[in-house]
Amino acid sequence: MRQQKETIAVLGAGSWGTALALVLADNGHEVRLWSHNEEQVKEINQNHANKKYLPEIVLPALIVGYASLNDTLTGVETVILAVPTKAIREVLGKIRAVRHSPLTIAHVSKGIEPDSLMRISEMIKEELPEQFLESVVVLSGPSHAEEVSLRQPTTVTVSSENITAAGKVQDLFINQNFRVYTNPDVIGVEIGGALKNIIALAAGITDGLGYGDNAKAALMTRGLAEIARLGTKMGANPLTFSGLTGIGDLIVTCTSVHSRNWRAGNLLGKGQTLEEVLENMGMVVEGVRTTKAAYQLAKKYDVKMPITFALYDVLFNGKSAKDAVDVLMARGKTHEMEDLINILDERNIED
Amino acid sequence: MRQQKETIAVLGAGSWGTALALVLADNGHEVRLWSHNEEQVKEINQNHANKKYLPEIVLPALIVGYASLNDTLTGVETVILAVPTKAIREVLGKIRAVRHSPLTIAHVSKGIEPDSLMRISEMIKEELPEQFLESVVVLSGPSHAEEVSLRQPTTVTVSSENITAAGKVQDLFINQNFRVYTNPDVIGVEIGGALKNIIALAAGITDGLGYGDNAKAALMTRGLAEIARLGTKMGANPLTFSGLTGIGDLIVTCTSVHSRNWRAGNLLGKGQTLEEVLENMGMVVEGVRTTKAAYQLAKKYDVKMPITFALYDVLFNGKSAKDAVDVLMARGKTHEMEDLINILDERNIED
Repeated sequence: MRQQKETIAVLGAGSWGTALALVLADNGHEVRLWSHNEEQVKEINQNHANKKYLPEIVLPALIVGYASLNDTLTGVETVILAVPTKAIREVLGKIRAVRHSPLTIAHVSKGIEPDSLMRISEMIKEELPEQFLESVVVLSGPSHAEEVSLRQPTTVTVSSENITAAGKVQDLFINQNFRVYTNPDVIGVEIGGALKNIIALAAGITDGLGYGDNAKAALMTRGLAEIARLGTKMGANPLTFSGLTGIGDLIVTCTSVHSRNWRAGNLLGKGQTLEEVLENMGMVVEGVRTTKAAYQLAKKYDVKMPITFALYDVLFNGKSAKDAVDVLMARGKTHEMEDLINILDERNIED
Repeated sequence: MRQQKETIAVLGAGSWGTALALVLADNGHEVRLWSHNEEQVKEINQNHANKKYLPEIVLPALIVGYASLNDTLTGVETVILAVPTKAIREVLGKIRAVRHSPLTIAHVSKGIEPDSLMRISEMIKEELPEQFLESVVVLSGPSHAEEVSLRQPTTVTVSSENITAAGKVQDLFINQNFRVYTNPDVIGVEIGGALKNIIALAAGITDGLGYGDNAKAALMTRGLAEIARLGTKMGANPLTFSGLTGIGDLIVTCTSVHSRNWRAGNLLGKGQTLEEVLENMGMVVEGVRTTKAAYQLAKKYDVKMPITFALYDVLFNGKSAKDAVDVLMARGKTHEMEDLINILDERNIED
């Protein structure tokens, strides 16, 4: 059964938005790739390129750059929202101003908003009027944009409270190279995707300090446990953290040179300050904001998150990276199950 | 409280046995490092070196090489058994011949015996008379020997049906760089450590084929799920697979250049035959034997293990590595929870 060809709006022409536009175009859909940067829109339409983010890629004719959000959304039913979490509310406000009929929004960002402590699907519901919001979907998983743009095999998960909407987004994206699975656990999918950036920053730090693979594997194992503890207490299904958007995304983000969160951590481990790192990166490092949000969430839900707390002290309280890691390694606890069983304990409290 | 200094026998002077001897010597224990290779024993005692396995390391005077198993075991209460799984029964037979008083055996090998389908602690119990076997302990976790020998931070788990024995082995090894946790789930610790080598072989294959980090993360995620499905049905605690000996060891084995199972898979992915690979490696590749054993276990326990089955076909039925991976990627299943929920389903059957 061939799927229907549609016109899809992709908002945000960074590496991930552009890579997903390529997947949609590979599947025969027309893609309107919106950017607030008019030079970038010109480059997309005149040179069929997006050199800053995916330098090696030629964009097919099915991808058309748009500078006007009104034009982008006209006649479109599905929007892929691919902007950094920091810009999400601003872009949603622009959508609210121009769009007055129902829309499905599939977001592909990974973060938690500090202070409000909202997941991205919650921010979308807060910013858009209910009568114009058909459904909210999240697409997440172990998926470096560079590899997706090169059509290397990739798996992701889509999740929504509306199972039909999740299935529709799955149909839009799925092909031989890009395998899409569904999972009904929106909270788990969003928390796993967001919080793994914290562990990637920490893994970059241990690598930058010159510690080895043994230390990094220990950090990732405990990192996943603390993410699962928090997520489960927030209402997620603990199994989701054993899936593509949990352990899968954690692995790819902590072990790949493509990961900007890992690279930022690596520079911190080598002795740069946070200000120097952010200046040198020139791209958004989601994990920094997410560390602040997760620190607040851990306090709110009364969950132990030693790695998050240690990283918070390094990022925002001037603690040295080496001291923070040494404290983590020297913890007095000796029963491994203490770390793990808590996940189910937290779950029981909720049930 | 200072721990008591003991004389410990380490049987097997490969890289792992030697690295663990170093940890024990760092803690002030006298170590008798036994090898069946007299040249190696000479090198240890005359040059304080073990060039073949840990070329950069100087062995301290507390480590003494032994060629006679009888001398090695005289007056010793605790044996660290660090030989390849293939040699375990032979070495246990030699112990049985010379030792006629109670002994605690802590094994540090990772494998399952094909055909008998025994875990290593089961083999130990079968080979040694009950009255001479004080306790059996397993030590496992994400721990490349090279890094341990360089005193890089490392975490491992010890497990035993005898909680006092586990605590004693924990005390012998624990120090600032080498953190030791306990976990009462012997089955889960042994199954996770053994079966992760299968996934490391498969991960080496996808890397050798030129697939990217996205594909490898997907493989590792599903690999852990199939290990947990089998292990849980065998009686393990599913949480153990989220710990150091599950996901932790899987990560380090699949992503580190130190891993010989990954290296063997990598050569397979690049087109070498199994015979060529084993000849080129010159070291034991535990994952090959373990794949055969896990294939048999999956049939015995009626558990779906698609990665194990695909690898079995590559190793033993002449299937091309690329065909096997492409089949895995193209699976028709679309609900991620099918993979994950089965873990708990299998558990319920046992309960």
